Amino acid sequence: MTLEDLTRKKERRSAERAELDRLLDEVLVGTVATVSDEGEPWVVPMLVARHGDRVLLHGSTGAGALRRVAAGAPAALCVYAVDGLVLASSMFDHSANYRSAVVRGTLTRLEGQEAWDALDAVSDSLVPGRRAEVRPMLGKEVAATVALAIDLTDDNWILKVRSGGTGEEAADVPDDVWTGVLPVRTSYGEPEPSPWQSDDLPVPPSVVALRERR
Amino acid sequence: MTLEDLTRKKERRSAERAELDRLLDEVLVGTVATVSDEGEPWVVPMLVARHGDRVLLHGSTGAGALRRVAAGAPAALCVYAVDGLVLASSMFDHSANYRSAVVRGTLTRLEGQEAWDALDAVSDSLVPGRRAEVRPMLGKEVAATVALAIDLTDDNWILKVRSGGTGEEAADVPDDVWTGVLPVRTSYGEPEPSPWQSDDLPVPPSVVALRERR
Repeated sequence: MTLEDLTRKKERRSAERAELDRLLDEVLVGTVATVSDEGEPWVVPMLVARHGDRVLLHGSTGAGALRRVAAGAPAALCVYAVDGLVLASSMFDHSANYRSAVVRGTLTRLEGQEAWDALDAVSDSLVPGRRAEVRPMLGKEVAATVALAIDLTDDNWILKVRSGGTGEEAADVPDDVWTGVLPVRTSYGEPEPSPWQSDDLPVPPSVVALRERR
Repeated sequence: MTLEDLTRKKERRSAERAELDRLLDEVLVGTVATVSDEGEPWVVPMLVARHGDRVLLHGSTGAGALRRVAAGAPAALCVYAVDGLVLASSMFDHSANYRSAVVRGTLTRLEGQEAWDALDAVSDSLVPGRRAEVRPMLGKEVAATVALAIDLTDDNWILKVRSGGTGEEAADVPDDVWTGVLPVRTSYGEPEPSPWQSDDLPVPPSVVALRERR
């Protein structure tokens, strides 16, 4: 490998990392795979957020699913977004546009100030601005919550992306067969206030901003 | 347990199964967790469909990810749908509405006619009606595709559902704090035809129907 090859590879990896960050910031949920004491595979969906080089997960200390994943065990986290269905002129060439990533690492349980910071970061990622609108966490509430992290390193993750149209050559597609992409969109619908709430209470800025973002 | 309790439990399980089927039919992707030869957790996203009591997965025989999951190994499949963000008056009570399921079982590789039927079923699940619009699969194409199944039994799956508003009591929510649910919606956008295609070619019925469904 020449120096130029190495530089290119480093640049590509850096671009991939930016794409990984974008995906982790975009998704609400990831699935965490672990191996049970009996050697069996286990997987559980969890709310996911990113804070710098850290992927943050959280749940209740009472949740059975979390007891399986909190013990400092090796884990593999999968996140994905489906961006579209790719419709081709043959069944075989049908595909899906997506972005997905798998992060492998050890789940670390965060304690003390790190747990507070992580829970704030999860909140800021899922509903930016909401913390300023409501009562903050109490010490006993943080204690009742499991905050977990997997750190992103240079080489503990894989990103896969498929984008674009059908992989077929134009000449191979009959004139009368429609091919193309059907985009898949995720968006937020009309906010539904709690039933007891006054109609005069405006939808808060955090919710307005989230709806504008998607 | 009385006979009445047992009947109720059976009815509840049957209702849960209907909900599981609805979820499996609705999602496009699931994540499949397995244990590597070294005992490490692994997880990979795959397109998913349901055909009766069978969950169907497929991929290319060339895909490294599939080589890890096709060996008749124990697997855990996770599917989820996020239905909304639940905004409470305290950070702690924030939550998400979701439906998720984990199916545990052994991945069976389908061969011969079963593989053909499975691939047809996957297609009919993801884009109903598309098969009638395009060239069908060829023998060599089916051979180049891995079709996998996990069978649903009475007790190899868990379904979890959270729905409704904040779990707080109305009396505990200050009058000036907006609480409620922000629904999350998945929909199909405007179809994007292949660039070489004539503008006169109408969007096919399969695509029109998919867009109307969501």
